[in-house]
Amino acid sequence: MGGDVAPETPVAGAVRAARDLPIEVVLIGDQALIEGQLARYGRRPANVSVIHASETIEMDESPVAAVRKKKDSSINVGIECLRDHRVDALVSAGNTGAVACAATLLLGLLPGVERPGIGLLLPGLHGETLLIDVGANIGPKPLHLLHYALMGEAYARFVLGKMRPSVGLLNVGEEETKGTEFIRETYSLLQNAGINFIGNTEGRNIFMGQCDVIVCDGFAGNVALKTAESLAHAISHILKRSLARGPIRRLGAWLCRDAFRGLRQEIDYAEHGGALLFGVSGVCVIAHGASTAKAIKNAIRVGYESVRNNVTRHLMEAVQPAAPVP
Amino acid sequence: MGGDVAPETPVAGAVRAARDLPIEVVLIGDQALIEGQLARYGRRPANVSVIHASETIEMDESPVAAVRKKKDSSINVGIECLRDHRVDALVSAGNTGAVACAATLLLGLLPGVERPGIGLLLPGLHGETLLIDVGANIGPKPLHLLHYALMGEAYARFVLGKMRPSVGLLNVGEEETKGTEFIRETYSLLQNAGINFIGNTEGRNIFMGQCDVIVCDGFAGNVALKTAESLAHAISHILKRSLARGPIRRLGAWLCRDAFRGLRQEIDYAEHGGALLFGVSGVCVIAHGASTAKAIKNAIRVGYESVRNNVTRHLMEAVQPAAPVP
Repeated sequence: MGGDVAPETPVAGAVRAARDLPIEVVLIGDQALIEGQLARYGRRPANVSVIHASETIEMDESPVAAVRKKKDSSINVGIECLRDHRVDALVSAGNTGAVACAATLLLGLLPGVERPGIGLLLPGLHGETLLIDVGANIGPKPLHLLHYALMGEAYARFVLGKMRPSVGLLNVGEEETKGTEFIRETYSLLQNAGINFIGNTEGRNIFMGQCDVIVCDGFAGNVALKTAESLAHAISHILKRSLARGPIRRLGAWLCRDAFRGLRQEIDYAEHGGALLFGVSGVCVIAHGASTAKAIKNAIRVGYESVRNNVTRHLMEAVQPAAPVP
Repeated sequence: MGGDVAPETPVAGAVRAARDLPIEVVLIGDQALIEGQLARYGRRPANVSVIHASETIEMDESPVAAVRKKKDSSINVGIECLRDHRVDALVSAGNTGAVACAATLLLGLLPGVERPGIGLLLPGLHGETLLIDVGANIGPKPLHLLHYALMGEAYARFVLGKMRPSVGLLNVGEEETKGTEFIRETYSLLQNAGINFIGNTEGRNIFMGQCDVIVCDGFAGNVALKTAESLAHAISHILKRSLARGPIRRLGAWLCRDAFRGLRQEIDYAEHGGALLFGVSGVCVIAHGASTAKAIKNAIRVGYESVRNNVTRHLMEAVQPAAPVP
């Protein structure tokens, strides 16, 4: 029931995933609406089923209040399915705060973890970068960022297959003395965490792909991500407008249409799938509210790969040594 | 002496500015080096002169220590020239922290202002947005953001010519309840500031140009700006690489070369000039370290226009009603 065009887009993405991946897809939400959408695809794939949830948490609702009140919302029911092992992974394009809150309250956190963080894999010039946190924890303690670093490192190792993932701390400069008190405390925790900590890294490195994992407070991460989104949108809009001016440019644009398509695929992170909620006791994937069917399918793929790679166990083991609060 | 290629690029930009604008350009720094660069332009324009400064503050030096120690650095001498009214505006592509620190210590702040903020005018889809602060004040109080809002509003009014500039607060969501305690306190100050405060605004609006002024803490602002820079770089690189693949694409790219040039002009904020240091008792313009000669010229233009529009007086008057600390 989540995302800008629901349940149409999530159902479309789920049907694609059911066709492409060796998984069972369970759609959770208003059964009549979902069945109505499924009917559009002719014969329903055998690996798609529906679990009814009578309520929906809207995008603008306060997460904590909504999760407490709407016990039969698709988000609550989905998290309960995950807790009760009726599903192995949950994907939602709905209210991110509500998913994080329901996961925290109903599913629980990994031992030692105090606050979940959202990790998004961003495409970059020289490879991908996992940015944690992009908005779940806007006023974190240094310890929370240590946990994100440990979990991110484990994810890069076990899911992305990096031998010795590099981890950076997002800051306003690269020198060790730069930044706030919070940053300097976090820096010293990361230095002693037994990971390949490369020190401070600036916003200018996020899309360079030179660092495997970058940790940050959720406020800065969210602002950075949405600013990038806005710039990409502005660039694409200005370029389109400009390329449509006059027959010669239109011909030129037509000749390079594949290059533009390739660029879109490379930079559009929605096409790369969803973000993982790090620190909860199960696989929760957060998809963008504006996800296309393809993005939903890719988010489901992220969930599938996370389960197949035992992500939850690896993340739990990664945090364990740091669990006793220093 | 500031910027990646100094004094070559600053001198080149200064010569261009001296030709295009009705101003006297004073170059401050190592006289021999500057004269050497000037000699490349044949007959020096009559409105260009040099003031010698024997030291240089490097980009990686700690601002406070460097400003205290290097009393004859080009930054210190420049700020003193501004204080003593030997120049009306100062432009620097050097160590930003050192410029902000020297301005605070040697020039002084406007009455009531506690910390300067850097305001950068960003191009957007529907117009420009002034973002304050992009890195001078990484741990601000709500009062500091109130001052940035009041000064930014005055700048939009008196320099950009907006009738009733809109002011937004950068946050992770648009609802009034979103964000940290710091954000909520700032929100309530802005609501009662007698300006056209439109409430919270997200990173996704920065390059939309729908809000004239956006205020934020310098940490988030710096991260957002540098992330955007990195994305723009990545997009341009990927596109270039992709357009060079095969003769048909190369032909297409050649046919639309003007469109790409137009895009670069529209989005490259370095081409739009420098950032203004808001809250100090004089016109200080901060240029990007990677500024081209054209960007330096545009930064000088920003200084010229700020002086011509009496920016310092307008900013002082804007902060005055808020000066008694609440």
